Amino acid sequence: MRKYRLFAPGPTAVAESASLAMAGSIIHHRTRAFEAVLEEVRRGLKWLFQTKNEILILASSGTGAMEGAVTNLFSKGEKVIVVDGGKFGERWWKICKAYGVEPEIIKVPWGEAVSPADVEKLLKKGGYKGVLVQASESSTGVTHPIEKLADLTRGMKDCLLVVDAISALGAMDLPMDRWGIDALIGASQKALALPPGLALIGLSDKAWQAAEKGNLPRFYFDFRKELKGLVTNQTAYTPAIGLIFGLAERLKAMQTEGLQPLFERHQRLSDGMRAGVTALGLALFAKSPVNSLTAVIAPSGIDGQKIYKTLQEKYNLTIAGGQDDFKGKIFRLAHMGHYDDLDVVTVLAALEWTLADLGYRFEMGAGVGAAMKVLHG
Amino acid sequence: MRKYRLFAPGPTAVAESASLAMAGSIIHHRTRAFEAVLEEVRRGLKWLFQTKNEILILASSGTGAMEGAVTNLFSKGEKVIVVDGGKFGERWWKICKAYGVEPEIIKVPWGEAVSPADVEKLLKKGGYKGVLVQASESSTGVTHPIEKLADLTRGMKDCLLVVDAISALGAMDLPMDRWGIDALIGASQKALALPPGLALIGLSDKAWQAAEKGNLPRFYFDFRKELKGLVTNQTAYTPAIGLIFGLAERLKAMQTEGLQPLFERHQRLSDGMRAGVTALGLALFAKSPVNSLTAVIAPSGIDGQKIYKTLQEKYNLTIAGGQDDFKGKIFRLAHMGHYDDLDVVTVLAALEWTLADLGYRFEMGAGVGAAMKVLHG
Repeated sequence: MRKYRLFAPGPTAVAESASLAMAGSIIHHRTRAFEAVLEEVRRGLKWLFQTKNEILILASSGTGAMEGAVTNLFSKGEKVIVVDGGKFGERWWKICKAYGVEPEIIKVPWGEAVSPADVEKLLKKGGYKGVLVQASESSTGVTHPIEKLADLTRGMKDCLLVVDAISALGAMDLPMDRWGIDALIGASQKALALPPGLALIGLSDKAWQAAEKGNLPRFYFDFRKELKGLVTNQTAYTPAIGLIFGLAERLKAMQTEGLQPLFERHQRLSDGMRAGVTALGLALFAKSPVNSLTAVIAPSGIDGQKIYKTLQEKYNLTIAGGQDDFKGKIFRLAHMGHYDDLDVVTVLAALEWTLADLGYRFEMGAGVGAAMKVLHG
Repeated sequence: MRKYRLFAPGPTAVAESASLAMAGSIIHHRTRAFEAVLEEVRRGLKWLFQTKNEILILASSGTGAMEGAVTNLFSKGEKVIVVDGGKFGERWWKICKAYGVEPEIIKVPWGEAVSPADVEKLLKKGGYKGVLVQASESSTGVTHPIEKLADLTRGMKDCLLVVDAISALGAMDLPMDRWGIDALIGASQKALALPPGLALIGLSDKAWQAAEKGNLPRFYFDFRKELKGLVTNQTAYTPAIGLIFGLAERLKAMQTEGLQPLFERHQRLSDGMRAGVTALGLALFAKSPVNSLTAVIAPSGIDGQKIYKTLQEKYNLTIAGGQDDFKGKIFRLAHMGHYDDLDVVTVLAALEWTLADLGYRFEMGAGVGAAMKVLHG
C-alpha cells in the first residue's frame, strides 16, 4: 500500500473541500450563478491581497502574470532594477529582455536576500521605472525585504515595486496598500492549496496609471481588458471555471481561519520544521528564510538529489531538490497551504529515514522530537 | 428541484469520469507518475490531431494558443490573410495588430463561409506568410472550407495555414498531416468535455521552421521552449496538472469510441438538432454549418436574447445568444463533447417550451418528434 504525499514548494496538496468543489458541474461563465461566485472571489482576493483594488484572475500559471506585469507596466527601452537571487529572479530579467525592457540586474548570491541599500543606491542614480523582486524566491527559500523596498519606492512618482509573491501569498503578511506594493502576484498551486492553472495579480493605482501608458505588445495578458471584464464579474477570455470554484472554497476557508492566524500558522510550521532540521545537525540554506518553505544544505558526503529521490521513490513523498548550481547541494521542504503541524512531523520522519538509508549518522527521532516540542501547544 | 444543464458552445458539460480524475490528488509534475500520464496524453493528442508531431499543452484559454500562433510563427511587419467571418475571425486580426503583424482581412458576412477563390486570389498576389482562419466560427456556427484552403497553401514554401479549431477539434475530421494544416488549435472546454484552462496546438514541420525564425516577443507562449520540455514529458512552466489528468481520461474515452465514430456522432447530433429546429419552422443561420453547434435565426417578433434568457432562467439550461450585430437575432445550440442523442431531445423540448412561453405558434412536440425520427437507430 503506497500513499502519495505532496510537500513540494508548489504544486502543494489540494484541500479536499476544494477538490470536491471543482468536481461539481461546470456552470457557464455568462450566468448569474457564476457571476455570484466571481463576485465573492473578488471580495475574498481583495481581503487576501489587503488592497482596495481589484485582483485579476488569469487562466495561466504564475509566469503568465509575471509576463503580464512586464508587458503592461513598462515600455520598450525603459530601465528597471531586477533583483536576481535565484531561478525566479532570473525569470524577471529574461521576461524583460524578451520584451525590450532593460533590466539592471542586482545579482544576489543564492541563499541571500538583497540589501535594500544596494537597491537604494541604484534608485538614487534615477531613471528606473520599476524594481522587480520576489517576496519568496522558491529556488532558495529566501524572502527579500519587501517592506523596506516599498519604503524606497512608495514616494517615487514613476517607479513601481513589482513583487512576485507566488510562493508567499497567503503564507506571509504582504499588506499591499499599507506598504505600497504596486504589483503583487500570486498563483493557485502554492499556499492557496489549489491545482496549478490560475495566476493572480493586484495593481496599485500608480501601476494602473502605468498600464494605461505602456506601449509593449500584449493581448491575452492585457490587464486593462481584464479589469473591464472583472468589474462586471467576467474575465476577458474564458475563465478556468473549475479552478475558480475551488478558489471560492479556499478563500472561504482562509477567511474563516483569519489573515493573522494564517500567517502565524505558517510561521509556526517554519519554526517547527527548522527546529527539526537543525536538531539533525543539518544547516539551513537561506539567510533570510521565508515561512512557506525551508531550504536545507545536504550533509557533506550525501548528494542532495539522492535525498530528494529516496523520499520520492522509497517513501512516495515529493519535496524538491536544488536547482542549477545548487542541484545536489540543497533540498527544499515546503510547509504551506493545506498543511498542519502533523505534516511537519510526517515530513521530518520520512526525511530521517531517508538520511539513515543514505548513511548519515544521527540519533533517529531527534528531528521529529525537536519539532514536536516547538509545535506542541 | 432545479437541475442545471450546460449546452453552450463552450464551456460544455464535463464528463463525470474526467471530473473524478481531476478530483484526485495532485501529483507533482516532476515525478515519473506524472510523466507517464503526460506521455500517454502526448500519444492521445497526436491521434486526435492526426499528426506525427507533438501537440503543445498550454495552461491558458484557447486565446493564449491563438496569440502564441501569431507570435511564434510570424515576424514584425509580415503580412497574413485573416478570414473574418465572426467574433473569432476578428480575434485573429486583433492579435496580429497587437504584435505588428499586418493582416489583410477577408471580411465574410456573418453566417457565411469564406470562398476559397477569394483566398486564392490574394495568395496569387504573393507576399503573405499565412492564412488565419476558423474551422468552426463559434459566433456563427459556420465551418470554413479548411481542406480547400489547405489545398492552396500546402505546396507553398513560406505560407502557413493556421486554423483555430477550438470548437471543432474532436467534432469534425481535420486530418492535420494529410491535409497539410500548419497550426491546429484546440481547447479543453469544447468537444473534449473538460473545464476551461487548457489550450492545445499542433504545428507542422513547416510551422516549426517558421517558429525558429520568428522575431516577435514571446515568453510564456514560447513554443520552442514548450517543445523542448514536452519531449521529456514536461512543460515549460507549471502545467495545469488537474486538467491534464482529466485530459488523459477524456482521450482514453475518445480513443475507445474511435475517431470516425466520434465525428459521425457529432454529425448525427447535428442532423437531429437541425431536423428538430426546422420542423419548428425556424431557419438555420449558418450556410455552411459546423457539426459542433447550430445557430438558429430567432423567429420574427421574438427577441433571440429572450429565448436564451428564458432557457437560462426558467429551465436552468444554458445555450448561447448571438453576439455583436446578431445579439437578439440568433441563438446557438451546441451539440459536442459529452453529448448524446437524448441530449438533443432535452434541448429541443426546453426550446419548444420556451418558444411557447414567448408566444411563438407551432405544434408542440413537432421539433422533438422530427429529431427523434432522425436519431432513431
